[in-house]
Amino acid sequence: MKYGVVAFPSKKLQDLANSYRKRYDPHYALITPHMTLKGVFEANDNEIEELSKKIRKVTDQHNPFKLQTTSFSSFAPVTNAIYFKVVPTDDLVKLHEDLHKESLGSETEYAFVPHITIAQKMASGEHDDIYAQVRMIGVDHEEMIDRLHLLYQLEDGSWTVYETFRLNGAENQFDFS
Amino acid sequence: MKYGVVAFPSKKLQDLANSYRKRYDPHYALITPHMTLKGVFEANDNEIEELSKKIRKVTDQHNPFKLQTTSFSSFAPVTNAIYFKVVPTDDLVKLHEDLHKESLGSETEYAFVPHITIAQKMASGEHDDIYAQVRMIGVDHEEMIDRLHLLYQLEDGSWTVYETFRLNGAENQFDFS
Repeated sequence: MKYGVVAFPSKKLQDLANSYRKRYDPHYALITPHMTLKGVFEANDNEIEELSKKIRKVTDQHNPFKLQTTSFSSFAPVTNAIYFKVVPTDDLVKLHEDLHKESLGSETEYAFVPHITIAQKMASGEHDDIYAQVRMIGVDHEEMIDRLHLLYQLEDGSWTVYETFRLNGAENQFDFS
Repeated sequence: MKYGVVAFPSKKLQDLANSYRKRYDPHYALITPHMTLKGVFEANDNEIEELSKKIRKVTDQHNPFKLQTTSFSSFAPVTNAIYFKVVPTDDLVKLHEDLHKESLGSETEYAFVPHITIAQKMASGEHDDIYAQVRMIGVDHEEMIDRLHLLYQLEDGSWTVYETFRLNGAENQFDFS
């Protein structure tokens, strides 16, 4: 099965993202708006329990982090995807790094550019039109993220949640058990 | 915000349900196949943390339960919805009951008929046609459910997971803390 680890932002930011995704993102119906922390990886049913424990070990070491968006950005010309750019704070980069340690499989393939996709898989002309429109407006938003979710993918491409992990490093810092 | 508590069955059963939902369920894109344990209720951001704790108290007292489907059934003529009928075992009925105790708000409005919806909001003619087709075949499936999920609804009607609760009563039965 295919798995991934994401953070779902607040309802407010998800609603804003969906107002674009509805029109410009063919994945709109497959998953609600999210920031990917660990991209798609393969695991079988046995492996996933083990992986789930390892992810919990990581999230137990991390505090809730600030998710701050400032502007729209685009991955073009690599791929015609437009997104809310998320500020790569030290906390966020470290969390991503820890979710890609050796024991958690798969080296990270790309540089980590934290983002919430709002449009993708468009022709270049459409991409350029939309990007020209949105790059003039800001996405000035800030919130705390206190949990991650491990998802798996169904045959039709949609994603279901398998497990929720609280970022409760603060609670655990005096727990040496 | 609107919240609900559901169990997502295994990928196998979800894929089967989606093969029908794709064609016959307008909620297909809003949520993956599920069995509802606590129907839609309203709560604000402060209430939900409190509710979440109360739900955890319930799930901590319950063991994983067997989800067994045997056949298709329909809520017609009350509503034109077709579903996988889930056997209402004692464990499942007790879990549903505990999720509707006074402190968890809202009395349960209807008798509990555990089910996984695969078709709904059809005209009566279409309903009767589809139901005539599927009622001849069984849905002979059995699996263990070891977690519930608390979801909330976005403006576009889609559902995002807020929290996952393990049913780990067995682990906690000697924990009197």
